[in-house]
Amino acid sequence: MATTLVVNPGSSSRKYALYRGGQSVLDFRFEDTNTGFEMCSQTSGTQQICEAIKKDDFADAFARVVDAVETYLFREERGKKLDSVVIRIVAPGTFFQRHAIIDETYVRELKKREPVAPLHIPIMLREVESARKHFKQAKIIAASDSAFHSTMPPCAREYSIAVADADQFDIHRFGYHGLSVASIVRRIHPLIGIQPERMIVCHLGSGSSVTAVKNDKSVETTMGFSPASGLPMGSRAGDIDSAALLELMRVKHWRPADAEMYINTNGGLVGIANESDIRRLLDRRAQNDATATHALNVFAYNIQKAVAAQTVALGGLDVLVFTATAAVRSSELRSIILRGLSHLGIQISKDRNDLLVGKDGVISMRNSAVKVVVMRTDEMGEMAQVATQVLLESPK
Amino acid sequence: MATTLVVNPGSSSRKYALYRGGQSVLDFRFEDTNTGFEMCSQTSGTQQICEAIKKDDFADAFARVVDAVETYLFREERGKKLDSVVIRIVAPGTFFQRHAIIDETYVRELKKREPVAPLHIPIMLREVESARKHFKQAKIIAASDSAFHSTMPPCAREYSIAVADADQFDIHRFGYHGLSVASIVRRIHPLIGIQPERMIVCHLGSGSSVTAVKNDKSVETTMGFSPASGLPMGSRAGDIDSAALLELMRVKHWRPADAEMYINTNGGLVGIANESDIRRLLDRRAQNDATATHALNVFAYNIQKAVAAQTVALGGLDVLVFTATAAVRSSELRSIILRGLSHLGIQISKDRNDLLVGKDGVISMRNSAVKVVVMRTDEMGEMAQVATQVLLESPK
Repeated sequence: MATTLVVNPGSSSRKYALYRGGQSVLDFRFEDTNTGFEMCSQTSGTQQICEAIKKDDFADAFARVVDAVETYLFREERGKKLDSVVIRIVAPGTFFQRHAIIDETYVRELKKREPVAPLHIPIMLREVESARKHFKQAKIIAASDSAFHSTMPPCAREYSIAVADADQFDIHRFGYHGLSVASIVRRIHPLIGIQPERMIVCHLGSGSSVTAVKNDKSVETTMGFSPASGLPMGSRAGDIDSAALLELMRVKHWRPADAEMYINTNGGLVGIANESDIRRLLDRRAQNDATATHALNVFAYNIQKAVAAQTVALGGLDVLVFTATAAVRSSELRSIILRGLSHLGIQISKDRNDLLVGKDGVISMRNSAVKVVVMRTDEMGEMAQVATQVLLESPK
Repeated sequence: MATTLVVNPGSSSRKYALYRGGQSVLDFRFEDTNTGFEMCSQTSGTQQICEAIKKDDFADAFARVVDAVETYLFREERGKKLDSVVIRIVAPGTFFQRHAIIDETYVRELKKREPVAPLHIPIMLREVESARKHFKQAKIIAASDSAFHSTMPPCAREYSIAVADADQFDIHRFGYHGLSVASIVRRIHPLIGIQPERMIVCHLGSGSSVTAVKNDKSVETTMGFSPASGLPMGSRAGDIDSAALLELMRVKHWRPADAEMYINTNGGLVGIANESDIRRLLDRRAQNDATATHALNVFAYNIQKAVAAQTVALGGLDVLVFTATAAVRSSELRSIILRGLSHLGIQISKDRNDLLVGKDGVISMRNSAVKVVVMRTDEMGEMAQVATQVLLESPK
């Protein structure tokens, strides 16, 4: 049975998992929480253990994982070597819109794109380097977070800028959260008994996006060239008038890199309410905090508009899915969002919605024209699948 | 009876009209056409006369209009002086989101905003100056193209950027085409027999926007801080991922002013197909020109998405209005757009749509859930109304 180490360097956390024959057997999560750094680990069938760690340990997360993986392989697999390491790649570019084996060319392309995504690409490059160093015999695989959106039609993929520039500088709408949406498409049938023809997936985590899926293929998504675009997010601004950003650059004497940093870290819920945690915002809203209420209104309103807009790409809507932490954990957030979508034929069961916290299930009424589903995402499992697929397709 | 000179310096043309008691009595249009410069003039009740003019005459349009206005006033009004000149103002800023008398403070504020809209504000300033010089006794009035959108709720008005920056640098979604939409709201009742509760107005001219109007008030619009945002237009890019524009700035070594020029002149239909004229694009499409077809697809798709998205702001949709040149003249364009909106309950009468070219009327089937209306805009008449209103409200 193949063993794969799944590496998911997110914006606010790093996750690692060892998969054996498609099943997770070891699980690590390093988080930069508001109060410090934390590591949680779990061996399948046992209790999760969490501990506070130092900042240095957070930086060296990979080394700690290597120890645990080697111990596991030694004990359970008689010292068998790891087959592959699969790393989630979030990078703008047609080149990156596919799953692939990471070779020298791939690393070179990634380095070339570093100025475009200076906050994210260096982290990925470090993970690639660590994987190569610690697992010399393993194939290193890129699980592209954009690959799922490569099916988007030209009218959704292209900005209306000079075609020559779009081609030469590779400026297109690539979309992200593709692994998450693919994991929903792969697993929804058993949960609701059908494979939906026209589906919209709202991924609401520290990053947020809405994706339209027609017959299992992405046809539209809110994120475009970069993962900072589209909806307002935890700290990302989402879409903002370019002229407005240029005005900020002018008055603040910013270079492009400063503006890039600003829209990635100073926008979204943090920009409006100085808080990216949806649960804390909901608490503040319950205490009639006007700023938190406004932030949640902006957040929900833009999601509602995106869902309604994407019915155009689908010609209607059969199933609406809420996934990722914020959406799965908070029935109140879902309720706020869904309140503005009743004109699409959505009827929610308040009881089912309230009951479903951190679990999968259907929250719409039986006679609702659109079925509304809550489903945990499975990016890690999706990446393990990607690794298997890429290895199968690669020349021996 | 009050006499008002209406001054509408557009992006590709300049229009002037003399209104007397709410009626247009003289009409001038200066156009920078593809083949040269043209002036058309008309006295009410007579034939329109068009002639080719020199570039200098285009620049001195105001002087020619002054002559004609003074001749008219001398002949028809016994040399009575002009009461007011009303100028269409398109400028980002909360200050400009109201109709007002243009005094020294107003001119100063306009000059302050010049770096934000370097293509448009100098033209307006020149018209203000000409008006003051030639009509010393007349009140000079600003008809704000954003005022109509001042009713937008906070969730539609605000970007998700740091609130302190939004406040200090006045970065909000102001919206434009307000005079056009207001002219629809003012005149739709006689045409369709009701005053719609939930209406969306698609203004498709050389600039394009979609606006949601609830009980006669704007609640959402596609243009934001600047008139270059929102939908793809003739030569304006509309919304583009900020990170993508920053990437273009990096690789092309642009300053903000270069980027500003680019998104205003190099995007939209011109960017994709090197052609801003919808009719020529439709001709090319009829000859299976793939580029023109793609440009029209992008154009129509973004309008469709905006209409669907704005049903959220309205909680549904009763009336959809097409206005401005491109929409009023081309039944084919309307047909392409409406084809993607049938899931909103829109049923079009092909015959009525085909028949209605350059005229006002209803093009939906009698049993369509949404009434679809074609209506010529009346920005000039709206501005004359604005002038009357501002003069009434101003201290004597």
